[in-house]
Amino acid sequence: MTSNRRIVLASRPSGAVRPDNFRLETVDLPPLADGQLLVRNLWLSLDPYMRGRMNEGRSYAPAQPLGETMVGGTAGTVVESRHPGFKAGDQVVGYLGWQEYGVSDGSGLYAVDTAHIALPAYLGAVGMPGVTAWIGLNRIIEPRAGETIVVSAAAGAVGGVAGQLARLAGCRTVGIAGGREKCDYVVRELRFDACIDYKSEDVGQALKAAAPQGVDGCFENVGGAILDAVLPRMKPFGRIALCGLIAGYNGEPIPIVNPTWLLVSRLKLQGFIVSDHMDLWPQALRALGTQVAGGQIRYRETIAHGLENAAEAFIGLLAGRNLGKQLVRLG
Amino acid sequence: MTSNRRIVLASRPSGAVRPDNFRLETVDLPPLADGQLLVRNLWLSLDPYMRGRMNEGRSYAPAQPLGETMVGGTAGTVVESRHPGFKAGDQVVGYLGWQEYGVSDGSGLYAVDTAHIALPAYLGAVGMPGVTAWIGLNRIIEPRAGETIVVSAAAGAVGGVAGQLARLAGCRTVGIAGGREKCDYVVRELRFDACIDYKSEDVGQALKAAAPQGVDGCFENVGGAILDAVLPRMKPFGRIALCGLIAGYNGEPIPIVNPTWLLVSRLKLQGFIVSDHMDLWPQALRALGTQVAGGQIRYRETIAHGLENAAEAFIGLLAGRNLGKQLVRLG
Repeated sequence: MTSNRRIVLASRPSGAVRPDNFRLETVDLPPLADGQLLVRNLWLSLDPYMRGRMNEGRSYAPAQPLGETMVGGTAGTVVESRHPGFKAGDQVVGYLGWQEYGVSDGSGLYAVDTAHIALPAYLGAVGMPGVTAWIGLNRIIEPRAGETIVVSAAAGAVGGVAGQLARLAGCRTVGIAGGREKCDYVVRELRFDACIDYKSEDVGQALKAAAPQGVDGCFENVGGAILDAVLPRMKPFGRIALCGLIAGYNGEPIPIVNPTWLLVSRLKLQGFIVSDHMDLWPQALRALGTQVAGGQIRYRETIAHGLENAAEAFIGLLAGRNLGKQLVRLG
Repeated sequence: MTSNRRIVLASRPSGAVRPDNFRLETVDLPPLADGQLLVRNLWLSLDPYMRGRMNEGRSYAPAQPLGETMVGGTAGTVVESRHPGFKAGDQVVGYLGWQEYGVSDGSGLYAVDTAHIALPAYLGAVGMPGVTAWIGLNRIIEPRAGETIVVSAAAGAVGGVAGQLARLAGCRTVGIAGGREKCDYVVRELRFDACIDYKSEDVGQALKAAAPQGVDGCFENVGGAILDAVLPRMKPFGRIALCGLIAGYNGEPIPIVNPTWLLVSRLKLQGFIVSDHMDLWPQALRALGTQVAGGQIRYRETIAHGLENAAEAFIGLLAGRNLGKQLVRLG
């Protein structure tokens, strides 16, 4: 085996991402050097943060370079190893990007046990999205039993875990998601107490009904009109963990129309990025692994098949067409 | 003496406050009951928060009732006392409102020592505005030596103290104020490192020059375009203490145009109200009293004379015509 297929960033999107922003390439695999290993990627993780990396300009992470393999989390199997820490057959999770094979020196790569947790879950509920949910909830919202927590993009990989962690902490949980199918999933499968369909309901009015005492914490993945609808419903001293602003990822204006609520209700609004808190990952992953293996935390996956469908799947993710974690299955 | 002059709220403003929203009345003073005392108010405190109370609707404090004496801080002298804790001649500070005399049962009233601190300073740097500055700075921004702190409305009663406390904590301090006179005062008298005149400068560009390394903390009194200009200059993990939004007090739209900065720079934005933190007042007042008496914290006052000029002075305060603490001197 000497060739590898990969997807590189061909051009930066202006506005919505289009298929021609990506290019599928076939390249030769170099022979392994000492200390390296070769991984067959079986699963690619697609995540909203990738949209930000496709832009130029100042952000919290360097921009994805043009012509380079798209960055991203991966799960796969070690094919060949000249690294003392890995052997052929190991199941590994890392950041090898949108390609069928990855050569690694072991950095950022770790072997996982798939006896009780399926391999792709390490890209979702027991991976970066799960840890994101854990940190935003436990380090910013700090929920107390009996409180009401709202989660936007509740059917997504992060939101679904955030709401379930809040429920397990003894909170009333209200999701916000787009469409009846997602809301049914959020309530029936993820066991939120309620879910508001922002496509067919007035979010502010629906929140009054779903959280009549007001909202203590908000796990915000969307921004724009969703956040504007939540702000007036926040109780004094409420906390908002700002995890994402997907409503504005294509450059749409997403002002906070009435920041007076932040003052009047003495709210705390705090942005965070999961990679700032590497010290918390072991603790979070232990908790999430136990809860996923034990069935206290559930998840679903939306799976695209084949590298050639990754771009379309990513565009679908940004448009909210996925339910739960969006993956690409390779091979 | 049996009559008292007072100003009551005659009507709620729609948009800007007008003189006819107030009414000057003369009423009889009731005889003192046991446990009461009579105070001759010598100073009225005028503060931006009063604008919010003039509105109907949900806020953090009940609306000012129509036909009742305007609420507000006062400093004066006890004329007559049937209260065991006060005697005639005591200098007292409290919340007796916009009137020449106040009858009190002692609640919220306390005697002050004017040997080293002038009586009206207890309505400013050593009173509610000073404590507001102290709490926002020390409990939300938590400045560390060497950091850069921006303060909007820096020439005001709160902002002036906030910046001086930041300087005393070893920070570089950059004020934002309206007009050259205010900026000169902020730099020369209050000893900020720099001050931006938002009326004649591009705040964003000026901040780049005044805080080339970025901004660690922002004490925000204004909102709107000022806050929008500060957000892109905030460093990662910056903290914004949201104390006031005077740009929107008359109902002007004051959206946060680009909340993406809150996420990208992982900022904490937290609203607060000084009255939520009564436990911190003694500690804050001790510190402020020492620093004012010792000259480490300076202040200026803008003084209107006579109750009949209180409304105009309040309108001037909301328009930014004051320098430092806006007071009304009575008698």
